[in-house]
Amino acid sequence: MPSPTPQLRDSYPHHLPIATRWMDNDVYGHDNNVVYYSYFDTVINRWLVDEGGLDIGGGDCIGLCVESRCAYLRPLAFPDALEGGLRVVHLGRSSVRYEIAIFAVGNVEAAAQGEFVHVFVDRATRRPAEMPPRIRDALARLMPR
Amino acid sequence: MPSPTPQLRDSYPHHLPIATRWMDNDVYGHDNNVVYYSYFDTVINRWLVDEGGLDIGGGDCIGLCVESRCAYLRPLAFPDALEGGLRVVHLGRSSVRYEIAIFAVGNVEAAAQGEFVHVFVDRATRRPAEMPPRIRDALARLMPR
Amino acid sequence: MPSPTPQLRDSYPHHLPIATRWMDNDVYGHDNNVVYYSYFDTVINRWLVDEGGLDIGGGDCIGLCVESRCAYLRPLAFPDALEGGLRVVHLGRSSVRYEIAIFAVGNVEAAAQGEFVHVFVDRATRRPAEMPPRIRDALARLMPR
Amino acid sequence: MPSPTPQLRDSYPHHLPIATRWMDNDVYGHDNNVVYYSYFDTVINRWLVDEGGLDIGGGDCIGLCVESRCAYLRPLAFPDALEGGLRVVHLGRSSVRYEIAIFAVGNVEAAAQGEFVHVFVDRATRRPAEMPPRIRDALARLMPR
Repeated sequence: MPSPTPQLRDSYPHHLPIATRWMDNDVYGHDNNVVYYSYFDTVINRWLVDEGGLDIGGGDCIGLCVESRCAYLRPLAFPDALEGGLRVVHLGRSSVRYEIAIFAVGNVEAAAQGEFVHVFVDRATRRPAEMPPRIRDALARLMPR
Repeated sequence: MPSPTPQLRDSYPHHLPIATRWMDNDVYGHDNNVVYYSYFDTVINRWLVDEGGLDIGGGDCIGLCVESRCAYLRPLAFPDALEGGLRVVHLGRSSVRYEIAIFAVGNVEAAAQGEFVHVFVDRATRRPAEMPPRIRDALARLMPR
Repeated sequence: MPSPTPQLRDSYPHHLPIATRWMDNDVYGHDNNVVYYSYFDTVINRWLVDEGGLDIGGGDCIGLCVESRCAYLRPLAFPDALEGGLRVVHLGRSSVRYEIAIFAVGNVEAAAQGEFVHVFVDRATRRPAEMPPRIRDALARLMPR
Repeated sequence: MPSPTPQLRDSYPHHLPIATRWMDNDVYGHDNNVVYYSYFDTVINRWLVDEGGLDIGGGDCIGLCVESRCAYLRPLAFPDALEGGLRVVHLGRSSVRYEIAIFAVGNVEAAAQGEFVHVFVDRATRRPAEMPPRIRDALARLMPR
Protein backbone atom coordinates (compact mmCIF):
# COMPACT_ATOMS: atom_id res chain seq x y z
CA MET A 1 0.00 0.00 0.00
CA PRO A 2 1.96 3.03 -1.23
CA SER A 3 1.56 6.22 0.74
CA PRO A 4 -0.37 8.99 -1.02
CA THR A 5 1.42 12.13 -2.16
CA PRO A 6 1.14 14.86 0.45
CA GLN A 7 -1.01 17.78 -0.56
CA LEU A 8 0.52 21.24 -0.39
CA ARG A 9 -0.63 24.06 1.87
CA ASP A 10 -1.14 26.48 -1.03
CA SER A 11 -3.68 24.24 -2.69
CA TYR A 12 -6.23 25.04 0.05
CA PRO A 13 -7.84 28.50 -0.14
CA HIS A 14 -8.73 28.61 3.57
CA HIS A 15 -6.68 27.80 6.67
CA LEU A 16 -7.73 27.61 10.30
CA PRO A 17 -5.32 27.34 13.25
CA ILE A 18 -5.92 24.21 15.35
CA ALA A 19 -4.64 23.83 18.90
CA THR A 20 -3.93 20.28 20.01
CA ARG A 21 -5.12 19.06 23.41
CA TRP A 22 -3.49 16.76 25.90
CA MET A 23 -6.17 14.14 25.30
CA ASP A 24 -5.50 14.08 21.55
CA ASN A 25 -2.42 11.91 22.11
CA ASP A 26 -3.02 8.23 22.51
CA VAL A 27 -0.97 5.60 24.22
CA TYR A 28 1.55 5.54 21.37
CA GLY A 29 2.39 9.19 21.96
CA HIS A 30 0.77 10.82 18.95
CA ASP A 31 -2.56 12.23 17.88
CA ASN A 32 -5.04 9.40 17.81
CA ASN A 33 -6.49 8.67 14.34
CA VAL A 34 -9.97 9.57 15.56
CA VAL A 35 -9.02 13.09 16.57
CA TYR A 36 -8.21 14.19 13.03
CA TYR A 37 -11.88 13.91 12.20
CA SER A 38 -12.68 16.32 15.01
CA TYR A 39 -10.27 18.75 13.35
CA PHE A 40 -12.02 18.22 9.99
CA ASP A 41 -15.40 18.80 11.59
CA THR A 42 -14.23 21.96 13.26
CA VAL A 43 -12.56 23.49 10.20
CA ILE A 44 -15.68 22.86 8.13
CA ASN A 45 -18.26 24.03 10.64
CA ARG A 46 -16.30 27.16 11.52
CA TRP A 47 -16.44 28.10 7.84
CA LEU A 48 -20.17 27.36 7.67
CA VAL A 49 -20.85 29.43 10.79
CA ASP A 50 -18.46 32.32 10.15
CA GLU A 51 -18.92 32.70 6.41
CA GLY A 52 -22.16 30.87 5.65
CA GLY A 53 -24.20 32.04 8.61
CA LEU A 54 -25.03 28.50 9.72
CA ASP A 55 -27.19 28.68 12.84
CA ILE A 56 -26.27 25.51 14.72
CA GLY A 57 -28.99 25.81 17.32
CA GLY A 58 -31.93 27.14 15.36
CA GLY A 59 -31.44 27.17 11.59
CA ASP A 60 -33.91 25.25 9.38
CA CYS A 61 -31.16 23.64 7.36
CA ILE A 62 -28.31 21.65 8.88
CA GLY A 63 -25.43 19.67 7.39
CA LEU A 64 -25.10 15.96 8.19
CA CYS A 65 -21.96 13.99 7.42
CA VAL A 66 -22.57 11.03 5.12
CA GLU A 67 -18.98 10.10 4.33
CA SER A 68 -15.49 10.87 5.56
CA ARG A 69 -11.98 9.59 5.05
CA CYS A 70 -8.44 10.37 6.07
CA ALA A 71 -4.92 9.34 5.08
CA TYR A 72 -2.32 9.75 7.82
CA LEU A 73 1.10 10.64 6.41
CA ARG A 74 3.19 11.79 9.37
CA PRO A 75 2.53 11.79 13.08
CA LEU A 76 1.34 14.89 14.92
CA ALA A 77 1.13 15.28 18.66
CA PHE A 78 0.17 17.56 21.50
CA PRO A 79 1.48 20.23 22.05
CA ASP A 80 2.03 20.86 18.30
CA ALA A 81 0.36 23.89 16.76
CA LEU A 82 -1.53 22.83 13.63
CA GLU A 83 -3.44 24.30 10.75
CA GLY A 84 -6.35 22.89 8.80
CA GLY A 85 -6.67 23.59 5.07
CA LEU A 86 -10.09 23.48 3.42
CA ARG A 87 -11.35 23.36 -0.16
CA VAL A 88 -14.53 22.29 -1.91
CA VAL A 89 -14.31 19.83 -4.78
CA HIS A 90 -17.99 19.26 -5.51
CA LEU A 91 -20.89 21.56 -4.77
CA GLY A 92 -24.44 20.36 -5.41
CA ARG A 93 -27.83 21.77 -4.45
CA SER A 94 -27.98 19.92 -1.15
CA SER A 95 -24.55 18.36 -0.81
CA VAL A 96 -20.92 19.35 -0.76
CA ARG A 97 -17.67 17.40 -0.86
CA TYR A 98 -14.81 19.00 1.04
CA GLU A 99 -11.13 18.15 1.02
CA ILE A 100 -9.27 18.93 4.21
CA ALA A 101 -5.63 18.67 5.15
CA ILE A 102 -3.84 19.05 8.45
CA PHE A 103 -0.45 20.75 8.57
CA ALA A 104 2.12 21.17 11.29
CA VAL A 105 2.63 24.93 11.46
CA GLY A 106 5.52 25.90 9.22
CA ASN A 107 5.33 22.77 7.09
CA VAL A 108 3.98 23.05 3.53
CA GLU A 109 3.29 19.32 3.14
CA ALA A 110 0.18 17.85 4.71
CA ALA A 111 0.61 15.52 7.68
CA ALA A 112 -2.87 14.15 7.01
CA GLN A 113 -5.41 14.68 4.26
CA GLY A 114 -8.96 13.60 3.71
CA GLU A 115 -12.49 14.14 2.49
CA PHE A 116 -15.82 14.87 4.11
CA VAL A 117 -19.29 15.00 2.54
CA HIS A 118 -22.14 17.02 3.99
CA VAL A 119 -25.74 16.55 2.94
CA PHE A 120 -27.89 19.47 3.96
CA VAL A 121 -31.23 18.47 5.41
CA ASP A 122 -34.28 20.07 6.94
CA ARG A 123 -33.71 20.10 10.70
CA ALA A 124 -37.17 18.74 11.50
CA THR A 125 -37.74 16.15 8.78
CA ARG A 126 -34.05 15.27 8.22
CA ARG A 127 -34.79 15.03 4.49
CA PRO A 128 -32.35 16.55 1.95
CA ALA A 129 -32.97 20.25 1.43
CA GLU A 130 -31.46 22.87 -0.80
CA MET A 131 -28.76 24.70 1.09
CA PRO A 132 -29.39 28.39 1.87
CA PRO A 133 -27.86 30.79 -0.67
CA ARG A 134 -25.47 32.29 1.89
CA ILE A 135 -24.02 28.88 2.69
CA ARG A 136 -23.79 28.00 -0.99
CA ASP A 137 -21.96 31.24 -1.73
CA ALA A 138 -19.53 30.66 1.09
CA LEU A 139 -18.80 27.14 -0.16
CA ALA A 140 -18.41 28.30 -3.76
CA ARG A 141 -15.57 30.56 -2.62
CA LEU A 142 -13.65 27.43 -1.59
CA MET A 143 -13.73 25.86 -5.04
CA PRO A 144 -10.64 25.79 -7.27
CA ARG A 145 -10.73 28.45 -9.98
CA MET B 1 -23.98 10.92 -4.56
CA PRO B 2 -25.90 7.67 -4.19
CA SER B 3 -25.82 6.01 -0.79
CA PRO B 4 -23.80 2.79 -0.60
CA THR B 5 -25.57 -0.53 -0.10
CA PRO B 6 -25.64 -1.45 3.58
CA GLN B 7 -23.49 -4.40 4.50
CA LEU B 8 -25.15 -7.28 6.33
CA ARG B 9 -24.32 -8.44 9.82
CA ASP B 10 -23.58 -11.99 8.72
CA SER B 11 -20.81 -10.90 6.42
CA TYR B 12 -18.59 -10.06 9.40
CA PRO B 13 -17.07 -13.04 11.27
CA HIS B 14 -16.58 -11.14 14.55
CA HIS B 15 -18.94 -8.87 16.50
CA LEU B 16 -18.29 -6.74 19.57
CA PRO B 17 -20.99 -5.03 21.66
CA ILE B 18 -20.53 -1.25 21.82
CA ALA B 19 -22.17 0.91 24.47
CA THR B 20 -22.88 4.48 23.45
CA ARG B 21 -22.03 7.35 25.79
CA TRP B 22 -23.86 10.58 26.48
CA MET B 23 -21.04 12.56 24.89
CA ASP B 24 -21.30 10.62 21.64
CA ASN B 25 -24.34 12.64 20.63
CA ASP B 26 -23.67 16.00 19.07
CA VAL B 27 -25.82 19.07 18.90
CA TYR B 28 -28.02 17.53 16.19
CA GLY B 29 -29.03 14.73 18.53
CA HIS B 30 -27.14 11.79 17.05
CA ASP B 31 -23.77 10.15 17.24
CA ASN B 32 -21.20 12.58 15.94
CA ASN B 33 -19.37 11.40 12.80
CA VAL B 34 -16.07 11.39 14.68
CA VAL B 35 -17.23 8.93 17.29
CA TYR B 36 -17.69 6.09 14.81
CA TYR B 37 -13.94 5.99 14.35
CA SER B 38 -13.52 5.47 18.08
CA TYR B 39 -15.82 2.45 17.70
CA PHE B 40 -13.71 1.18 14.80
CA ASP B 41 -10.53 1.63 16.81
CA THR B 42 -11.96 -0.20 19.76
CA VAL B 43 -13.35 -3.16 17.82
CA ILE B 44 -10.01 -3.64 16.08
CA ASN B 45 -7.75 -3.20 19.10
CA ARG B 46 -9.90 -5.46 21.27
CA TRP B 47 -9.39 -8.19 18.70
CA LEU B 48 -5.63 -7.54 18.57
CA VAL B 49 -5.36 -7.63 22.36
CA ASP B 50 -7.75 -10.50 23.09
CA GLU B 51 -6.91 -12.79 20.18
CA GLY B 52 -3.53 -11.57 18.95
CA GLY B 53 -1.87 -10.90 22.28
CA LEU B 54 -1.06 -7.28 21.41
CA ASP B 55 0.74 -5.71 24.39
CA ILE B 56 -0.28 -2.06 24.18
CA GLY B 57 2.13 -0.86 26.81
CA GLY B 58 5.23 -2.93 26.19
CA GLY B 59 5.16 -4.96 22.97
CA ASP B 60 7.90 -4.42 20.39
CA CYS B 61 5.45 -4.23 17.52
CA ILE B 62 2.50 -1.81 17.43
CA GLY B 63 -0.14 -1.01 14.82
CA LEU B 64 -0.44 2.54 13.49
CA CYS B 65 -3.42 3.70 11.48
CA VAL B 66 -2.47 5.01 8.04
CA GLU B 67 -5.91 5.27 6.48
CA SER B 68 -9.54 5.17 7.56
CA ARG B 69 -12.94 5.88 6.07
CA CYS B 70 -16.59 5.65 6.96
CA ALA B 71 -19.94 5.89 5.20
CA TYR B 72 -22.83 6.91 7.44
CA LEU B 73 -26.11 5.30 6.35
CA ARG B 74 -28.54 5.83 9.23
CA PRO B 75 -28.30 7.81 12.42
CA LEU B 76 -27.41 6.20 15.73
CA ALA B 77 -27.62 7.86 19.12
CA PHE B 78 -27.03 7.45 22.81
CA PRO B 79 -28.47 5.44 24.55
CA ASP B 80 -28.63 2.91 21.66
CA ALA B 81 -26.91 -0.43 22.15
CA LEU B 82 -24.65 -1.12 19.17
CA GLU B 83 -22.49 -3.85 17.72
CA GLY B 84 -19.35 -3.60 15.66
CA GLY B 85 -18.64 -6.15 12.93
CA LEU B 86 -15.07 -6.82 11.84
CA ARG B 87 -13.44 -8.60 8.91
CA VAL B 88 -10.05 -8.50 7.22
CA VAL B 89 -9.87 -7.95 3.46
CA HIS B 90 -6.13 -7.74 2.95
CA LEU B 91 -3.40 -9.19 5.09
CA GLY B 92 0.25 -8.42 4.31
CA ARG B 93 3.47 -8.98 6.22
CA SER B 94 3.32 -5.68 8.03
CA SER B 95 -0.08 -4.28 7.14
CA VAL B 96 -3.73 -5.21 7.32
CA ARG B 97 -6.89 -3.72 5.84
CA TYR B 98 -9.99 -4.14 7.99
CA GLU B 99 -13.61 -3.56 7.11
CA ILE B 100 -15.82 -2.57 10.01
CA ALA B 101 -19.54 -1.97 10.27
CA ILE B 102 -21.68 -0.59 13.06
CA PHE B 103 -25.11 -2.07 13.70
CA ALA B 104 -27.98 -1.07 15.93
CA VAL B 105 -28.63 -4.19 18.00
CA GLY B 106 -31.29 -6.28 16.32
CA ASN B 107 -30.76 -4.75 12.89
CA VAL B 108 -29.05 -6.83 10.19
CA GLU B 109 -28.21 -3.86 7.96
CA ALA B 110 -25.23 -1.68 8.84
CA ALA B 111 -25.90 1.85 10.07
CA ALA B 112 -22.33 2.77 9.15
CA GLN B 113 -19.53 0.93 7.40
CA GLY B 114 -15.92 1.67 6.73
CA GLU B 115 -12.31 0.68 6.38
CA PHE B 116 -9.18 1.02 8.48
CA VAL B 117 -5.57 0.18 7.60
CA HIS B 118 -2.95 -0.68 10.20
CA VAL B 119 0.75 -0.73 9.46
CA PHE B 120 2.70 -2.59 12.10
CA VAL B 121 5.90 -0.87 13.15
CA ASP B 122 8.70 -1.33 15.61
CA ARG B 123 7.74 0.61 18.73
CA ALA B 124 11.11 2.31 19.05
CA THR B 125 12.06 3.08 15.44
CA ARG B 126 8.51 3.41 14.12
CA ARG B 127 9.62 1.66 10.94
CA PRO B 128 7.43 -1.04 9.34
CA ALA B 129 7.98 -4.41 10.93
CA GLU B 130 6.66 -7.89 10.27
CA MET B 131 3.70 -8.52 12.54
CA PRO B 132 4.14 -11.20 15.22
CA PRO B 133 2.80 -14.65 14.20
CA ARG B 134 0.12 -14.63 16.89
CA ILE B 135 -1.31 -11.36 15.60
CA ARG B 136 -1.12 -12.56 12.01
CA ASP B 137 -2.96 -15.76 12.90
CA ALA B 138 -5.65 -13.84 14.71
CA LEU B 139 -6.14 -11.55 11.71
CA ALA B 140 -6.17 -14.46 9.26
CA ARG B 141 -9.18 -15.85 11.12
CA LEU B 142 -11.11 -12.73 10.11
CA MET B 143 -10.61 -13.22 6.37
CA PRO B 144 -13.43 -14.46 4.13
CA ARG B 145 -13.11 -18.13 3.26
CA MET C 1 -2.78 15.12 50.58
CA PRO C 2 -4.02 11.78 51.93
CA SER C 3 -5.92 9.57 49.53
CA PRO C 4 -9.64 9.24 50.24
CA THR C 5 -11.03 5.93 51.47
CA PRO C 6 -12.36 3.88 48.56
CA GLN C 7 -16.12 3.51 48.49
CA LEU C 8 -17.53 -0.02 48.34
CA ARG C 9 -19.58 -1.44 45.51
CA ASP C 10 -22.47 -2.39 47.79
CA SER C 11 -23.01 1.18 48.87
CA TYR C 12 -24.40 2.07 45.44
CA PRO C 13 -27.92 0.82 44.68
CA HIS C 14 -27.48 0.90 40.88
CA HIS C 15 -24.65 -0.38 38.66
CA LEU C 16 -24.11 0.01 34.94
CA PRO C 17 -21.49 -1.88 32.90
CA ILE C 18 -19.03 0.44 31.14
CA ALA C 19 -16.88 -0.64 28.22
CA THR C 20 -13.58 1.18 27.84
CA ARG C 21 -12.47 2.43 24.44
CA TRP C 22 -9.03 2.56 22.86
CA MET C 23 -9.09 6.36 22.96
CA ASP C 24 -9.73 6.41 26.71
CA ASN C 25 -6.07 5.68 27.39
CA ASP C 26 -3.73 8.60 27.30
CA VAL C 27 -0.04 8.76 26.64
CA TYR C 28 0.76 7.40 30.09
CA GLY C 29 -1.10 4.19 29.32
CA HIS C 30 -4.21 4.58 31.46
CA ASP C 31 -7.65 6.09 31.30
CA ASN C 32 -7.27 9.83 31.00
CA ASN C 33 -8.73 11.78 33.93
CA VAL C 34 -11.23 13.47 31.63
CA VAL C 35 -12.78 10.23 30.49
CA TYR C 36 -14.11 9.34 33.94
CA TYR C 37 -16.52 12.24 33.67
CA SER C 38 -17.91 10.77 30.47
CA TYR C 39 -18.56 7.59 32.44
CA PHE C 40 -20.31 9.62 35.16
CA ASP C 41 -22.42 11.40 32.57
CA THR C 42 -23.39 8.17 30.92
CA VAL C 43 -24.32 6.31 34.12
CA ILE C 44 -26.50 9.22 35.22
CA ASN C 45 -28.23 9.89 31.92
CA ARG C 46 -28.92 6.22 31.29
CA TRP C 47 -30.78 6.15 34.60
CA LEU C 48 -32.69 9.32 33.75
CA VAL C 49 -33.67 7.96 30.32
CA ASP C 50 -34.37 4.34 31.28
CA GLU C 51 -36.05 4.88 34.64
CA GLY C 52 -37.07 8.54 34.62
CA GLY C 53 -38.30 8.80 31.05
CA LEU C 54 -36.00 11.71 30.22
CA ASP C 55 -36.59 12.70 26.59
CA ILE C 56 -33.19 14.01 25.50
CA GLY C 57 -34.38 15.38 22.19
CA GLY C 58 -37.79 16.80 23.00
CA GLY C 59 -38.62 16.93 26.70
CA ASP C 60 -39.50 20.28 28.29
CA CYS C 61 -37.21 19.72 31.25
CA ILE C 62 -33.52 18.91 30.91
CA GLY C 63 -30.72 18.43 33.42
CA LEU C 64 -27.66 20.68 33.24
CA CYS C 65 -24.47 19.92 35.15
CA VAL C 66 -23.46 22.71 37.53
CA GLU C 67 -20.75 20.93 39.47
CA SER C 68 -18.68 17.76 39.24
CA ARG C 69 -15.66 16.24 40.94
CA CYS C 70 -13.64 13.05 40.93
CA ALA C 71 -10.95 11.43 43.06
CA TYR C 72 -8.75 8.94 41.21
CA LEU C 73 -7.61 6.09 43.44
CA ARG C 74 -6.20 3.43 41.12
CA PRO C 75 -5.51 3.42 37.42
CA LEU C 76 -7.91 1.85 34.93
CA ALA C 77 -7.21 1.26 31.27
CA PHE C 78 -8.59 0.00 28.01
CA PRO C 79 -9.47 -2.85 27.54
CA ASP C 80 -10.69 -3.20 31.17
CA ALA C 81 -14.35 -3.94 31.74
CA LEU C 82 -15.75 -1.46 34.26
CA GLU C 83 -18.89 -0.77 36.23
CA GLY C 84 -20.36 2.51 37.38
CA GLY C 85 -22.15 2.74 40.72
CA LEU C 86 -24.77 5.45 41.28
CA ARG C 87 -26.55 6.86 44.31
CA VAL C 88 -28.38 10.09 45.14
CA VAL C 89 -27.35 12.02 48.25
CA HIS C 90 -29.51 15.12 47.92
CA LEU C 91 -32.78 15.48 46.05
CA GLY C 92 -34.40 18.90 45.75
CA ARG C 93 -37.28 20.21 43.65
CA SER C 94 -35.09 21.16 40.72
CA SER C 95 -31.69 19.78 41.62
CA VAL C 96 -30.04 16.51 42.52
CA ARG C 97 -26.61 15.58 43.84
CA TYR C 98 -25.33 12.20 42.69
CA GLU C 99 -22.39 10.21 43.92
CA ILE C 100 -20.78 7.94 41.36
CA ALA C 101 -17.99 5.41 41.60
CA ILE C 102 -16.12 3.47 38.95
CA PHE C 103 -15.11 -0.13 39.64
CA ALA C 104 -12.94 -2.58 37.78
CA VAL C 105 -15.21 -5.59 37.30
CA GLY C 106 -14.71 -8.01 40.16
CA ASN C 107 -13.27 -5.41 42.51
CA VAL C 108 -15.40 -4.21 45.43
CA GLU C 109 -13.33 -1.07 46.08
CA ALA C 110 -13.81 1.95 43.85
CA ALA C 111 -11.00 2.88 41.47
CA ALA C 112 -12.47 6.37 41.23
CA GLN C 113 -15.30 8.15 42.99
CA GLY C 114 -16.98 11.49 42.60
CA GLU C 115 -19.98 13.76 42.63
CA PHE C 116 -22.14 15.40 40.02
CA VAL C 117 -24.93 17.96 40.46
CA HIS C 118 -27.76 18.39 37.98
CA VAL C 119 -30.05 21.39 37.95
CA PHE C 120 -33.18 20.75 35.96
CA VAL C 121 -34.20 23.62 33.73
CA ASP C 122 -36.82 24.47 31.16
CA ARG C 123 -35.35 23.56 27.78
CA ALA C 124 -36.37 26.85 26.16
CA THR C 125 -35.72 29.40 28.90
CA ARG C 126 -32.92 27.48 30.64
CA ARG C 127 -34.31 28.63 33.97
CA PRO C 128 -34.59 26.20 36.89
CA ALA C 129 -37.74 24.12 36.73
CA GLU C 130 -39.31 21.52 38.98
CA MET C 131 -38.28 18.10 37.76
CA PRO C 132 -41.07 15.89 36.34
CA PRO C 133 -42.56 13.43 38.90
CA ARG C 134 -41.32 10.39 37.00
CA ILE C 135 -37.75 11.62 37.10
CA ARG C 136 -38.06 12.56 40.78
CA ASP C 137 -39.39 9.09 41.60
CA ALA C 138 -36.58 7.43 39.73
CA LEU C 139 -34.00 9.53 41.58
CA ALA C 140 -35.65 8.90 44.96
CA ARG C 141 -35.08 5.17 44.42
CA LEU C 142 -31.34 5.86 44.43
CA MET C 143 -31.31 7.45 47.88
CA PRO C 144 -29.95 5.61 50.92
CA ARG C 145 -32.68 4.20 53.15
CA MET D 1 -27.18 25.05 46.30
CA PRO D 2 -26.01 28.61 45.78
CA SER D 3 -23.77 29.28 42.80
CA PRO D 4 -20.12 30.05 43.65
CA THR D 5 -18.76 33.56 43.08
CA PRO D 6 -17.06 33.78 39.69
CA GLN D 7 -13.31 34.17 39.82
CA LEU D 8 -11.79 37.12 37.97
CA ARG D 9 -9.40 36.90 35.06
CA ASP D 10 -6.75 38.99 36.78
CA SER D 11 -6.43 36.58 39.65
CA TYR D 12 -4.71 34.02 37.37
CA PRO D 13 -1.08 34.79 36.47
CA HIS D 14 -1.12 32.69 33.26
CA HIS D 15 -3.65 32.52 30.42
CA LEU D 16 -3.81 30.19 27.44
CA PRO D 17 -6.14 30.64 24.44
CA ILE D 18 -8.47 27.66 23.93
CA ALA D 19 -10.26 26.97 20.66
CA THR D 20 -13.55 25.12 20.95
CA ARG D 21 -14.34 22.22 18.62
CA TRP D 22 -17.58 21.18 17.00
CA MET D 23 -17.64 18.01 19.10
CA ASP D 24 -17.42 19.97 22.35
CA ASN D 25 -21.10 20.83 22.14
CA ASP D 26 -23.51 18.24 23.37
CA VAL D 27 -27.11 17.63 22.50
CA TYR D 28 -28.23 20.59 24.61
CA GLY D 29 -26.21 22.96 22.46
CA HIS D 30 -23.36 23.87 24.79
CA ASP D 31 -19.97 22.61 25.82
CA ASN D 32 -20.44 19.28 27.51
CA ASN D 33 -19.38 19.20 31.17
CA VAL D 34 -16.69 16.63 30.39
CA VAL D 35 -14.91 18.83 27.89
CA TYR D 36 -13.93 21.45 30.46
CA TYR D 37 -11.60 18.94 32.02
CA SER D 38 -9.83 18.52 28.70
CA TYR D 39 -9.30 22.29 28.75
CA PHE D 40 -7.91 22.05 32.29
CA ASP D 41 -5.59 19.25 31.29
CA THR D 42 -4.33 21.14 28.30
CA VAL D 43 -3.70 24.43 30.11
CA ILE D 44 -1.74 22.62 32.81
CA ASN D 45 0.30 20.35 30.57
CA ARG D 46 1.16 23.14 28.18
CA TRP D 47 2.68 25.02 31.12
CA LEU D 48 4.57 21.93 32.28
CA VAL D 49 5.94 21.30 28.79
CA ASP D 50 6.65 24.90 27.74
CA GLU D 51 7.94 26.27 31.04
CA GLY D 52 8.84 23.20 33.07
CA GLY D 53 10.44 21.12 30.33
CA LEU D 54 8.16 18.14 30.94
CA ASP D 55 9.09 15.40 28.47
CA ILE D 56 5.80 13.61 27.88
CA GLY D 57 7.30 10.72 25.96
CA GLY D 58 10.54 10.05 27.74
CA GLY D 59 10.99 11.94 31.02
CA ASP D 60 11.58 9.96 34.22
CA CYS D 61 9.01 11.93 36.18
CA ILE D 62 5.40 12.34 35.06
CA GLY D 63 2.35 13.98 36.63
CA LEU D 64 -0.75 11.88 37.33
CA CYS D 65 -4.09 13.45 38.19
CA VAL D 66 -5.43 12.31 41.56
CA GLU D 67 -8.29 14.77 41.96
CA SER D 68 -10.23 17.27 39.88
CA ARG D 69 -13.36 19.36 40.18
CA CYS D 70 -15.27 22.00 38.26
CA ALA D 71 -18.12 24.42 38.90
CA TYR D 72 -20.03 25.47 35.79
CA LEU D 73 -21.31 29.05 36.05
CA ARG D 74 -22.39 30.02 32.53
CA PRO D 75 -22.67 28.05 29.33
CA LEU D 76 -19.97 28.14 26.67
CA ALA D 77 -20.27 26.68 23.19
CA PHE D 78 -18.49 26.06 19.92
CA PRO D 79 -17.47 28.28 18.12
CA ASP D 80 -16.65 30.51 21.11
CA ALA D 81 -13.04 31.55 21.60
CA LEU D 82 -12.00 30.83 25.19
CA GLU D 83 -9.13 31.39 27.54
CA GLY D 84 -7.89 29.26 30.40
CA GLY D 85 -6.45 30.89 33.52
CA LEU D 86 -4.00 28.97 35.71
CA ARG D 87 -2.59 29.42 39.22
CA VAL D 88 -0.99 27.17 41.81
CA VAL D 89 -2.40 27.18 45.35
CA HIS D 90 -0.30 24.44 46.94
CA LEU D 91 3.12 23.23 45.91
CA GLY D 92 4.67 20.23 47.64
CA ARG D 93 7.72 18.11 46.87
CA SER D 94 5.84 15.67 44.68
CA SER D 95 2.39 17.21 44.34
CA VAL D 96 0.76 20.41 43.19
CA ARG D 97 -2.76 21.79 43.44
CA TYR D 98 -3.80 24.01 40.54
CA GLU D 99 -6.80 26.26 40.20
CA ILE D 100 -8.06 26.77 36.69
CA ALA D 101 -10.77 28.95 35.24
CA ILE D 102 -12.29 29.15 31.78
CA PHE D 103 -13.27 32.54 30.34
CA ALA D 104 -15.14 33.57 27.26
CA VAL D 105 -12.74 35.92 25.49
CA GLY D 106 -13.48 39.48 26.56
CA ASN D 107 -15.23 38.47 29.76
CA VAL D 108 -13.47 39.06 33.09
CA GLU D 109 -15.69 36.68 35.08
CA ALA D 110 -15.06 32.96 34.85
CA ALA D 111 -17.63 30.82 33.04
CA ALA D 112 -16.26 27.77 34.85
CA GLN D 113 -13.69 27.29 37.58
CA GLY D 114 -12.08 24.32 39.21
CA GLU D 115 -9.17 22.50 40.75
CA PHE D 116 -6.78 19.80 39.65
CA VAL D 117 -4.15 17.93 41.67
CA HIS D 118 -1.08 16.34 40.12
CA VAL D 119 1.10 13.85 41.91
CA PHE D 120 4.47 13.43 40.26
CA VAL D 121 5.62 9.85 40.01
CA ASP D 122 8.47 7.86 38.59
CA ARG D 123 7.41 6.78 35.10
CA ALA D 124 8.49 3.18 35.59
CA THR D 125 7.45 2.43 39.17
CA ARG D 126 4.54 4.89 39.32
CA ARG D 127 5.54 5.73 42.89
CA PRO D 128 5.59 9.36 44.09
CA ALA D 129 8.80 11.13 43.19
CA GLU D 130 10.19 14.56 43.86
CA MET D 131 9.43 16.78 40.91
CA PRO D 132 12.41 18.00 38.84
CA PRO D 133 13.70 21.48 39.85
CA ARG D 134 12.75 23.03 36.51
CA ILE D 135 9.14 21.91 36.88
CA ARG D 136 9.05 23.08 40.49
CA ASP D 137 10.39 26.49 39.50
CA ALA D 138 7.85 26.83 36.73
CA LEU D 139 5.02 25.95 39.13
CA ALA D 140 6.31 28.32 41.81
CA ARG D 141 5.91 31.18 39.33
CA LEU D 142 2.17 30.50 39.30
CA MET D 143 1.73 30.98 43.05
CA PRO D 144 0.12 34.10 44.47
CA ARG D 145 2.64 36.55 45.90
